[in-house]
Amino acid sequence: MLWLVIPIIAGAVALLCAAYMAWYITKQPMGSDAMQNISAAIRTGSKAYLKRQYKTIAVISIILGIIFYLGFDFGKLPFTSAAFLLGALCSLIAGYLSMDVATRANVRTAAAAEKSVPKALKISFYGGLVMGEANVALSLIGVTILYWLYGDPTLIIGFGFGASLSALFAQLGGGIFTKAADVGADLVGKIEAGIPEDDPRNPAVIADNVGDNVGDMAGRGADLFESCTGENIAAMIVGLALYVATQNFFFVIFPLLARSVGIFATIIGIPFVRGKEGVDPMVPLRNGVIATVIFCVIGFYLLTMSTLNSLDLFFAGLSGITASLLIVLVTEYYTSRKYRPVQDIAEASKTGPSTNIISGLAVGLECTALPVVIICGAIASAFYFGGLYGAATPGVGWMLGGVYGTAIATMGMLSIAGMILGLDGFGPICDNAAGIVEMSGGSQEARRKMEAFDAAGNTTKALTKGYAMAAAGMAALLLFRAYLDIVHVQVVDIVQPQILIAAFLGAMIPFLFAALAIRAVGRAAFKMVEEVRRQFKEKGIMEGRGKPDYGRCIDISTLAAQKEMILPGLLPVITPILVGFILGPTAAGAFLMVATISGFILAMWMNNGGAAWDNAKKFIEASGLKGTDQHKAAVVGDTVGDPLKDTAGPSIHVLVKLLGTLSITFGMMFATYALMH
Amino acid sequence: MLWLVIPIIAGAVALLCAAYMAWYITKQPMGSDAMQNISAAIRTGSKAYLKRQYKTIAVISIILGIIFYLGFDFGKLPFTSAAFLLGALCSLIAGYLSMDVATRANVRTAAAAEKSVPKALKISFYGGLVMGEANVALSLIGVTILYWLYGDPTLIIGFGFGASLSALFAQLGGGIFTKAADVGADLVGKIEAGIPEDDPRNPAVIADNVGDNVGDMAGRGADLFESCTGENIAAMIVGLALYVATQNFFFVIFPLLARSVGIFATIIGIPFVRGKEGVDPMVPLRNGVIATVIFCVIGFYLLTMSTLNSLDLFFAGLSGITASLLIVLVTEYYTSRKYRPVQDIAEASKTGPSTNIISGLAVGLECTALPVVIICGAIASAFYFGGLYGAATPGVGWMLGGVYGTAIATMGMLSIAGMILGLDGFGPICDNAAGIVEMSGGSQEARRKMEAFDAAGNTTKALTKGYAMAAAGMAALLLFRAYLDIVHVQVVDIVQPQILIAAFLGAMIPFLFAALAIRAVGRAAFKMVEEVRRQFKEKGIMEGRGKPDYGRCIDISTLAAQKEMILPGLLPVITPILVGFILGPTAAGAFLMVATISGFILAMWMNNGGAAWDNAKKFIEASGLKGTDQHKAAVVGDTVGDPLKDTAGPSIHVLVKLLGTLSITFGMMFATYALMH
Repeated sequence: MLWLVIPIIAGAVALLCAAYMAWYITKQPMGSDAMQNISAAIRTGSKAYLKRQYKTIAVISIILGIIFYLGFDFGKLPFTSAAFLLGALCSLIAGYLSMDVATRANVRTAAAAEKSVPKALKISFYGGLVMGEANVALSLIGVTILYWLYGDPTLIIGFGFGASLSALFAQLGGGIFTKAADVGADLVGKIEAGIPEDDPRNPAVIADNVGDNVGDMAGRGADLFESCTGENIAAMIVGLALYVATQNFFFVIFPLLARSVGIFATIIGIPFVRGKEGVDPMVPLRNGVIATVIFCVIGFYLLTMSTLNSLDLFFAGLSGITASLLIVLVTEYYTSRKYRPVQDIAEASKTGPSTNIISGLAVGLECTALPVVIICGAIASAFYFGGLYGAATPGVGWMLGGVYGTAIATMGMLSIAGMILGLDGFGPICDNAAGIVEMSGGSQEARRKMEAFDAAGNTTKALTKGYAMAAAGMAALLLFRAYLDIVHVQVVDIVQPQILIAAFLGAMIPFLFAALAIRAVGRAAFKMVEEVRRQFKEKGIMEGRGKPDYGRCIDISTLAAQKEMILPGLLPVITPILVGFILGPTAAGAFLMVATISGFILAMWMNNGGAAWDNAKKFIEASGLKGTDQHKAAVVGDTVGDPLKDTAGPSIHVLVKLLGTLSITFGMMFATYALMH
Repeated sequence: MLWLVIPIIAGAVALLCAAYMAWYITKQPMGSDAMQNISAAIRTGSKAYLKRQYKTIAVISIILGIIFYLGFDFGKLPFTSAAFLLGALCSLIAGYLSMDVATRANVRTAAAAEKSVPKALKISFYGGLVMGEANVALSLIGVTILYWLYGDPTLIIGFGFGASLSALFAQLGGGIFTKAADVGADLVGKIEAGIPEDDPRNPAVIADNVGDNVGDMAGRGADLFESCTGENIAAMIVGLALYVATQNFFFVIFPLLARSVGIFATIIGIPFVRGKEGVDPMVPLRNGVIATVIFCVIGFYLLTMSTLNSLDLFFAGLSGITASLLIVLVTEYYTSRKYRPVQDIAEASKTGPSTNIISGLAVGLECTALPVVIICGAIASAFYFGGLYGAATPGVGWMLGGVYGTAIATMGMLSIAGMILGLDGFGPICDNAAGIVEMSGGSQEARRKMEAFDAAGNTTKALTKGYAMAAAGMAALLLFRAYLDIVHVQVVDIVQPQILIAAFLGAMIPFLFAALAIRAVGRAAFKMVEEVRRQFKEKGIMEGRGKPDYGRCIDISTLAAQKEMILPGLLPVITPILVGFILGPTAAGAFLMVATISGFILAMWMNNGGAAWDNAKKFIEASGLKGTDQHKAAVVGDTVGDPLKDTAGPSIHVLVKLLGTLSITFGMMFATYALMH
């Protein structure tokens, strides 16, 4: 148990590091009054939105907490319900901190852009890293303390479910908010009124920037908080069987130590991100990732050899890290303007919006193939190395060793999560900063610089989404294994009719969920469009007679997001419970697994397709064709991609893990009370 | 064996009936010279295309036939290779006959429209029914004769694989041809030049009409030929085990008798389709379906009681018929302009093409949910009733009885295939007829009448696609069961890593396949657009200086379709073979099953989403808003939907069955030579 001090120390170091970076950011100058005013408006809007959203999540969590208390803990110590509430709370705290720092970093990045690129990069990257460090650290500390208190990883799963639930609503609500504002602003501003992005005359422009903070920052943070948490707990549950077989306690706490290695590797990787005047910000960011990966591999090697003493298991971990890098590369191929897919979409835009959309759909559907092959390769390779270890170890055997191999691959993949999350947070901060420079009438020079930052941010956002989905898929697979352990199911045979039916239903759930999420954005955006049109017309903003009312647009997005997130949010909570209680625990396992497969593919399509449309538009703009029919067609594709890549897609990441944590939480109940078995 | 006379008689009656209808059609007047000229151009183009396509399919089939001879039949009687070639040949003949009659019926329908609605309905409906009868009859006769010759259903599967292969290329090639022409014609004609659909000045207009015949007629016919064939053979294989257990030979030949019942029910249903002046053609068509369904149910009851003597098995069959009707109702809800989904898309078009697309994507994704639930309900109910029979019958048992129950449900579903195919063929004939009336400058009255026919044809096309996918899904499920019997696999456990990997890959294949198919259409359409633009510019067609060159456009579509169908066509042939030989026969089963699930959902989305976009445009036109921005936005959605609903979606129907027939064909090889097991 003394070993548990290491993850606590690692978590504390990460939090201190985050605190230092936050302090560093607040020390930087905030720029002109105009900049500060805009930033204050974004900050106020973001806070107001999160307050409102957190209230909704709190109400749902407390109701569920009471149900859990009555269902699981009644008359006992409230293990499950307390863990659940703590999980939800930690996720919300991490989300809030991320948003808070991001809204401080945006204006300071904008101010620094006037003077120094390295400074601007440092501020925006630090801002993102605060999110990365806070999420990874809070997840690790929470799981470690609960494990220390409860002494049994199967009792902690409530913490994971709490994290899942608040991630679901954070990602859904934030995603609906940000895209309602973005689509609404674009449709009226860019297409109808012909004013550029981030034009201060557009009433929805502040809401758009608020959306970056509440959707991309708080939402994605909650997503990876959930991945780390779910993966940690599930790997510990899977490790229990190996502990029983080998009496090596490290099999249970290895996930916590692996995460600690990841934290240290991330911190050592920070200094490698050093911007230079005139150099594309992607270069230092890439250096940071490469350094972190190298340190992770070294750390992983030392850890595996010193605790589990198996080179095979190290190779299993390496499979996970390699797979995540390969998926990032594939994501880059399909979403970067440097390669064929995006250029094809740009070319197809010449014949109008129809061919732009058709071409983008084809790219999105196509891009699912390689990530699936890579994940399959990682599973095969990790299982093989794990199996080698198992076969050579008395009492373990091929199967158990193989399963632990895939667990270690997932840990390997998630060990770089802190750094990747940092890059992810870098995106919305730069997006905001570019908006602030534009709206405050910054110099031509600053605009040019911020454009490079914005483009880099767009790239990192797309790449990290590929990573996040790969991590979510592997974490969900691990949760599936842990679920089988919990309900004592050995075989999930799709020849059985109730299993086949559960598989069919599981495959469909991500589609229905995505439909509900997209429709929510459509409805919310429609309201936004009407409001922006009304303001243009009644206030005469375009004629310079009146000023836009930003607050009204923020209110519309806020209310719409709160209302619209309920239905898609309930779907993945209710359906697995129904499947589990009616078709039985084994069927619930099939439901979970096939939903993961289908969700993985659908999310890859939506994330990458959306990003490819976005960058096809940017490619056309970079060719100096802004304002042509080809560009207008590409704007249509970009707008269509928005709800796919920023609402439905990332929400599916959360969905697949939620199904896992929920099934594990209810697993024993399914096993006891289900109608079929 | 004497019982085998019944299916032969039924098949002969159906062929005679088809011959009578074809003769009736040719007897009708062909209208004005202008009409005849246009019709001749369509006919020549269709024949030229099919000739070219059949050459490609013949080459591929003969190569595969030789491989099969060497692999399966060497030194023996060429059972598998002969069956394979015969299957491909029968499918091609049925397709050719359908196209031939359709190109005769189109101009006669147009000519009749000037005078009598009942006459026009009779001609177009008869034209469609020739396709229905020819396909069902040739499939039944082929399977029966081969069974009579070989004496073992497992040896006939080559016939099914031949049907699958030629269906795949017929549907893919036809789908690419028709949508390249359609999208190309629309993009330049409707959107750029502002001329209406079917305007004779548009050089791609004849190619568009040719496409209806080679894509919708020959393609869909091949699709359902494959469904009937695959289902027949698979159900006979599944029936073998029950024959062994009960010594009741009817379990093996029941599928052939059930199909005979369906043929007679369809023929008796024909007179119920009786058009009336001033009545929506949908009314008599619906009456025909209702009558056929009632006769089918009665016939099915009599057949089940007299041969298998089990009310439970009759109820299993009823589950299948009911499920197919429910899926048609759901399809109608999502694709008809009378209901919310289509109206939502029309409403969303007010804010431009982006929101039109977003809304259509949401409808398409959403519409997958209910069909999945219905199919699951049908599986559960059929399995339950079959299980009841099995549990009560010594030597059979719950599981075997349940599996046969789902087989009977599939037979029930496919028993109305002839009538449904007739309705399906009605669509493209009316589409052609409307085009001929328009292009030949028909009277206002005839145009108005043909518009009602065209609308009814659009509806039947959408509904029958829902039916076709449900039938394909059930047939694939049955093929999966037959495959398990062939390779002697009892359990497909997705907990095993190689099974999980195969499931993952299987889920992805329909996505990649759809991507390739859509991209093929995009590329071909792009060439068409350039050609139409060139002709408009160089020939001055719009200024009345020159005449369009229809033949050039047909050539472009023909060449593009032949070239572009190869890559997507090879994918579903090569991947299951790789999976089977590397990951083993059980993994190949999981691949097949999960690909079916994923393909079912994806095809539902593409078919219904595409039809909803189409009808949203029509809804706006019917509201008198043609030419507005809202209408223009809806045209974008319609164009995007075209390759989804007429190329990728229907090709996925074929894909899932092809995976089944292919796996069964190669099953013993997987079992013998695979690297893993």
